[in-house]
Parts: sequence; structure tokens; C-alpha cells
Amino acid sequence: MRPEQAYELLTTHSRETAYLTSTIGLLHWDERTCIPAKGHAHRSSQLSFLAKVAHTMATDPRISEWLAAVEDSMLTNDPLSVEAVNIREWRRLYDRAVKIPVSLAVELARSASEGQTAWETARPRDDWDMFKPYLSWLVDLKREQAEAIGYENEPYDALLDYYEPYESAQRLEGIFQHLRQALVNLLDRIRGASNPDANAIRNCRFPIPDQESFAKEVAREIGYDFSAGRLDVSAHPFTQSIGPGDVRITTRYCEDSFSDAFFSVIHEAGHALYHQGLPLENWGTPICAPVSLGVNESQSRLWENLEAQSLPFWKHFYPQAQQRFAALHDLGLHQFYGAVNQVQPSLIRVDADEVTYNLHVLLRFELEVLLMRRELEVEELPEAWNEKMVTLLGLTPPDYSRGVMQDVHWSGGSIGYFPTYTLGNINAAQFFHQASAELDDLEAVLRQGEFRQLLEWLRANIHSQGSRYMPRDLVRHVTGEDPNPEYLIRYLERKYSELYRL
Amino acid sequence: MRPEQAYELLTTHSRETAYLTSTIGLLHWDERTCIPAKGHAHRSSQLSFLAKVAHTMATDPRISEWLAAVEDSMLTNDPLSVEAVNIREWRRLYDRAVKIPVSLAVELARSASEGQTAWETARPRDDWDMFKPYLSWLVDLKREQAEAIGYENEPYDALLDYYEPYESAQRLEGIFQHLRQALVNLLDRIRGASNPDANAIRNCRFPIPDQESFAKEVAREIGYDFSAGRLDVSAHPFTQSIGPGDVRITTRYCEDSFSDAFFSVIHEAGHALYHQGLPLENWGTPICAPVSLGVNESQSRLWENLEAQSLPFWKHFYPQAQQRFAALHDLGLHQFYGAVNQVQPSLIRVDADEVTYNLHVLLRFELEVLLMRRELEVEELPEAWNEKMVTLLGLTPPDYSRGVMQDVHWSGGSIGYFPTYTLGNINAAQFFHQASAELDDLEAVLRQGEFRQLLEWLRANIHSQGSRYMPRDLVRHVTGEDPNPEYLIRYLERKYSELYRL
Repeated sequence: MRPEQAYELLTTHSRETAYLTSTIGLLHWDERTCIPAKGHAHRSSQLSFLAKVAHTMATDPRISEWLAAVEDSMLTNDPLSVEAVNIREWRRLYDRAVKIPVSLAVELARSASEGQTAWETARPRDDWDMFKPYLSWLVDLKREQAEAIGYENEPYDALLDYYEPYESAQRLEGIFQHLRQALVNLLDRIRGASNPDANAIRNCRFPIPDQESFAKEVAREIGYDFSAGRLDVSAHPFTQSIGPGDVRITTRYCEDSFSDAFFSVIHEAGHALYHQGLPLENWGTPICAPVSLGVNESQSRLWENLEAQSLPFWKHFYPQAQQRFAALHDLGLHQFYGAVNQVQPSLIRVDADEVTYNLHVLLRFELEVLLMRRELEVEELPEAWNEKMVTLLGLTPPDYSRGVMQDVHWSGGSIGYFPTYTLGNINAAQFFHQASAELDDLEAVLRQGEFRQLLEWLRANIHSQGSRYMPRDLVRHVTGEDPNPEYLIRYLERKYSELYRL
Repeated sequence: MRPEQAYELLTTHSRETAYLTSTIGLLHWDERTCIPAKGHAHRSSQLSFLAKVAHTMATDPRISEWLAAVEDSMLTNDPLSVEAVNIREWRRLYDRAVKIPVSLAVELARSASEGQTAWETARPRDDWDMFKPYLSWLVDLKREQAEAIGYENEPYDALLDYYEPYESAQRLEGIFQHLRQALVNLLDRIRGASNPDANAIRNCRFPIPDQESFAKEVAREIGYDFSAGRLDVSAHPFTQSIGPGDVRITTRYCEDSFSDAFFSVIHEAGHALYHQGLPLENWGTPICAPVSLGVNESQSRLWENLEAQSLPFWKHFYPQAQQRFAALHDLGLHQFYGAVNQVQPSLIRVDADEVTYNLHVLLRFELEVLLMRRELEVEELPEAWNEKMVTLLGLTPPDYSRGVMQDVHWSGGSIGYFPTYTLGNINAAQFFHQASAELDDLEAVLRQGEFRQLLEWLRANIHSQGSRYMPRDLVRHVTGEDPNPEYLIRYLERKYSELYRL
């Protein structure tokens, strides 16, 4: 077969697979936003069937023939050309997919589905004994999956590859170790100080329609295109890319909290801006996809934290917020800024602030690595969890549901996912630092509510690159160095030293 | 292959195909209710791909082997057993699907898509010359499709089978001829009389949130289960069954019209009640499907017209409506009843009342049959249309967009669809007559807002039967006779003689 022809066939197959997976995306979005209560069982059957078709497509033996035809050829010399990148990624995805026997794929899907249902029942009852066998089953299967895929050093790496391709646990540990120490130290200093405005918007009322319209206005101003997306309500905020021209975000509202909905909208808008800025002319092939969760999360956290929780941001938006919300009429800008940046060690990751958040993640990452190494077993997990909570955050969970059973991820079979949250924060600070160095007086521009320059910089350097560079190469290409936690640490130190007068 | 095994394989294949088609259903629903403006192009690509997969599944040659194994066997003696019905329908659908060459299927899909886009552009500009070549292309393809499928008497029958299986144009003509004459006569008499309350709710304001909550309340009272469905807004009202536990309806609101949204909600709820009452234990096999559009439409029209436009219905609901809408405070029940039952020949089918509606449909049916017989060509269509409008409704369309170009159906390739609207009205009156005969004092019960008996009767006699009986057999089974327009004629004569004091 001529290589050009093989490449064409690979492209068509890739695009058709993407039509299917983007359809699965819509089914998921609908399940969390629109579906009537009695529709869940059928949705689960639809999704199982489509997952089976997607697996069949991903492991189609013709892919191997087509790849052989293009890899042996001189189709392209440039490893960063669209063709070379697509071939590189098709190869990685195909080789990984065919290593999973169908029986294991089915068992993994079943255990994830049953595990999640068990978790939904067990967590409100704080019933660890009920959940434990499901988690053990899942962990055993994830170990089996890691063995099936293979790895050089750590079984964990085989799972990590699904979320952060080309990354390794060992390298992450190197980055995280330094961050861990710096955060524990910063938190220690914060504990001895106080942010006088921490509770300034407690017990205030923020009517939900106003929260919605304000969040939409801000999302629009930072660049989210509502004619290519929409904002809905779901139990947990998420971004769903359905295809070019259709990237949707969600949030949930709570009338007595300004922060819950607002910052999650900006977080999801950050993800969506990445999707909206991908090289869409190549949609349906690997180059037109977020390169990793660690880069994807850098985009959400950059907008959510480095932007929307910054003082320049509110210099621009606070007058509008005051106009919208009666609760803010008599509150000064700096008080408000202090209130939305309170640091408080807490038991629950999803409620955590910028400083403590990564400690929650590191705890999970460390436990996951041990589980995959078989140096920790599921029945030892609650104790190990609680010990680490004391070391990292100085807190002891009073029960399982605010401890080891708090997250949905493990119950759904996502092991290897958590570290990308912290990697995202590290990348975000590093990218933002670089943007500030390259753009003329970025802070002044942002203070005036001009987000165009920053967005264009992200578009040019990150979004439009898609998966051209491997994740670490992208960071190096954009910032000149490997992922380096120093930028995050410096950012947090500076911000919270000022806020807490350290 | 053992017949039991073949039946099992057919069932699995059928269910998997249904997971796919129900997914396509969700994509359509989303496209008309939620999709952002820029998402349409991608949606169209998703749908084309999934249609291709569905076609491949429907023509899978293994179906033929499995069918051979079950048809030769004595799997069942009862032609009305679930197994026998499923085998009958799998055979019909398979034989029809394989007769369409893939090239024709692709061409049909393309012409439908391009035809609809052309219509959307041409209609607002009243540009018949622009639309005509697309319609000619479509009509040629539909003729080719009819030849490919084959027929005994009329090419039309091959197309009709998609919407009203086992029916024929000749038999419909027999039924419709009598109806046509009776309606023209009734309309003539109405033209010479007057309904004094016809304009009683013109120029009134009905706030949209109140319209929505009222329509929801009524839909719930007649039995629509909102925990297995939802009501949304779309440009044209429709019902989408996505699966068991998930049957959604839509409407559109206009602040100065009570009738537009309200009766369309009840219409769609009627369809949805049918879907919610199908034998769901067999979901994914043919027996668990509306048997035909003519029966499906009988369920929507029964609730919309025979119920929701009746006096007993408003005896129950009018006090609630008055409470909700200030515009009705000073209007009596009988005036309101007169207002929502105005008869007025008009150019546009979708705006037509109960009396004139079927004349619009008969016009289209007669033209379609001639087109398929090649006794009429597309370029003669506007003239033929206008002539029939004069004969049937006494009106001459002043332009194409209020004449031959008003409906979306032909532009999307739906030929053979229109007559099921009138068949639905005929069936509705016949079913309602039968229910009244079998249930004790139905009118009194309905006047008290008790819809349970009627719904249970429909559930037992029609909904739960699914596709067990062929459409005509179902009508015969339930009412003891073939579809007979006499019930519709008598119902209309009685109702409008009273209203118009004829």
C-alpha cells in the first residue's frame, strides 16, 4: 500500500472513531445535565455498547497494516509535522489498546460501573466495609492492566500514560517532593498568621440568576465563545468537548456562596478555551487534542487561580460584581480579594484552597504508587490515608466519607489521574510566568480587563499546538525548561505572604 | 444453528442496533434543543457516520442466516407471540434494507441534507427556482428507491411502508375519498355560519413561564411521567423517545397565543404516553415499537383534539387556567371553548384547525401519489398545488412559501409520510368512540379530571401491544372494524354543528 493512501485511511478511521467518541461525550454530558431520573439504566446500556464499538475500532487490525505502511516510508522528515505527530500518537494508542485483552476491557468497565454505584451507596452511609471489596477488585484489575500494558520502572507508569503520556511516576516524584516541602512550610507560616478578611462574605446571599449572568459575562469577557458552547448545571462542574464549535461547560450554584459557582465556571471556561483554540482543521486526528491532562488542567487553573483569584482581575470586575450583588455593596475590593483567598486546611480536596489543594493531591498520588507497587493493600488504605492527612495537613478525618472514601475517582477506576491536577498547577504558574515575561506589562493590561493578549499568547503557544509536542517538550518549548515547581511556589509565597502578612 | 440460538443472536443484534438508533435520537433531540450555533456542522458529520454504521448493522448478512434458522423452525405456532412478531418484523426490515444499494442510501441521505438546507434558504426568499432542482433530484431518487424496493400496484406503496407498514395508497384513497367530501361539505356549512367566540382570546397576553407551568401540570395530570421525560423548547414541537425511562417532548411559546404551546404540549404528551406504555420488557426488539405513524398520530391527536379541545376537559381545567392567566379572568368557559375551536380555512397546514387540517393533508397525499406515478412532474407542482387549494379550501396561495414550499417534509425526502397524519385523526376518533362504548360514562369521568380510565384503556388496547398486530389488524382488534372515517366525520359534524349552530 502506498504510504499516502495508508495515511488517508488512518485519517478517515481516526475521524470516524472521533465521531463515535464525541457522541459518547454528548451522552455523558446529557447524563449529567438533562437526563430524567428513570433514564439512567438505558444510558448505561447505550454507553456500554458504544464503548464496545469504540474498542473494536481502536483495535482494528487494519490500523497495524496502515501504520506499517506509513512508518516505513519517508512520508515526512519533520517529527513535528501534522503527519508525524499523528503517526506517533496512532502508534502509541494502538499498541496500548491491543495489549488489553477484550475480557479485561469488559471487566474493567464492569468494575468501574459497579464500583461507582457501590461508592454512591456506601459514601453517604460511611460504609467502608461495603465499599472495600469493590475497591480491592478495582485495584487488582488496575494492577493487571498495568502488567498487560507493560512498563519500564513502575507499574504506575502504565496507568499514568492514559492521562499524562510520556510521563513517569519517578519524574513526578522528583518534582513533587520539593513542592510538598515548600507547601507544608508555607502552610505552617499561614497557620500562625491571619487573613482579616477571610470571612467577609460568609453568610451573604448571592441570588442564583445573578450568579449565572455574572459568571457568563466574565466567561465571555475572557474569551469563551458561547455561540460554540453553553453553560449548564450539574452536580459536579465539568467541561465536555463534543466537537468543533461545541464545547460545553457546567457548574452548580449555592445561594450562600459566591466562590463555588463563580470560580468553577472560570475553571471550566479555561478548559473550554483550550478546546476552542485547538487546531480544528485537524479535528478527529490526534494532533487536535489536548496533549495531556496536566496541560489541560494548566489552562483551567491559570484562569481560575492566577487570573480570577488575583487582585488585578478584581480591579476590573469588582465594580460590576458590586453592581450585581447587594451583599457586596459595602465591601471594599481588598476585603473581597481577601475573602476569596482564604487558606484553611480542610478534609475535603474539592473544597481546598490554592495552598492546601496540592497536598491533598500528593497524598493520593503517593498512595496510588504504593498500591500499584503492591507495597500497600486496600485494607491498609484508611490508616495510610489518615496518617498522611496528619503529616500534610495536620488533620485527622473523623470518618471514612471525609477521608479515604471522599473522591469518586478510584471507584470509577481512575488511578493515575490525580497527579495531573498538581502538574496542572505547576504548569499554570510556569506558563503564566513566561507569558508575563513575553508580554508588555501584562498585569496592567489585565487590570484593565483586556484578556486578549493573554489569550492570544495561550492560543499561539499552547492551544494551537494541540498534541504536536509531547507534554514535557511543550513546557520546554514554551518556557525553556522542564516542569519546575519553583514558579508555583514563588507565586503562592508572594501572594499569601502579602495576604497573611507573613 | 439451533433456532433458539439464532433467535438469541437476532435479539442481541436488534438491541445493539437500537442502542445505536436511540443514540442517534439523542443527537437529534440535542440538535433541536441545546446545540450551540456553531455545533451544527459537526453534528451533521456525527449523524452521517452513525447512519452509515446503522445501515451496516441493518444489512448485516448474518441477519439473513439467523432468520433462515428461525423461520424454518417451529419456534412458535402463535403468530402473535413476541417471537413470531419479532421475526415477522426483522424479516420485513431486513428485506427492505438490503434492497437499497449503498450508493442509493448515501445519495438519499445527501439529497435530503442538501434539500433541507436549500429549502431553508429558498423558503424565506420565496425562491421556487432555487428549490426546484433539489426537489426534482429528491423526487427522482424517491422513484428510484420505490423501484429498488418493489411494489405490487403503486410505487407510492414502497415509500408508504416506511411510515405505515402493510398499508397501500389504494386502500387509503378509499378511506380518504369519503372523508374529503364530508369535510368539504362541513366546511361549506361552517363558512355560512359563525362562532361568536372565535376571537375571544385574540390579543391577550399569556406569560411564558405560566404557559410552561400550566402545560406541565396538565401533561402530568393526563399521565405523562416527568421522571421519565422532560419538556424543552424547540423551533417545532416534537417527541423524542431515547429509550425506556427517557421519552422527551418539546414545544415553543408565543406570548400572545394560548393555543400554540398548550395544544402542542398535549399533542406531544400523547405521543409520549404511547412510548411510555410500550412493552418495555422487550425494548430493542420490533414488538416494542409504535406499530405505525398512523397509530402513533392517533395517540397524539386523541389527547390534543378529542380530549384537550373538548368541553368536558375544560370543565375540569378551566378554573385552573383562569387562576393562572389574568387574560381569562373575565372570560366564560363556553367563550373560551369557542375560542380554542375556531374553524378558518388558511394557507398553512400547521396552523389549521381540526376541520381543515385533513384537507391540507389530502392535497399533499394526492400530489405525492401522482409524482410517484410520474403523472406529475416537479415543475408542474406549484400549479397543481394551487388548483387543489382552491378546490379543497377555496384559497389561492399568493406565493410559493405559503403554497408548495411551506412544509419541510419533501425537502428532507419524506414522501409517504403525510397521509399518516389523516390516518391518525381517523384512528383517534375510532379509538375514542370505542373507549366511550367500553368505559362507563367516560365523559362524566373526564369532566372530573380523571384520566386514569382512558389512559389504562389505551395502555391495555394500544400502547402495550406495541407492534404485535399489523396496523390495520390492531384497529380491527380494538374496534371490530377497519379504519373507518365515519367516526371522525360524525365527531366533527356534531362538535362543529353545535359550535357554529349549523
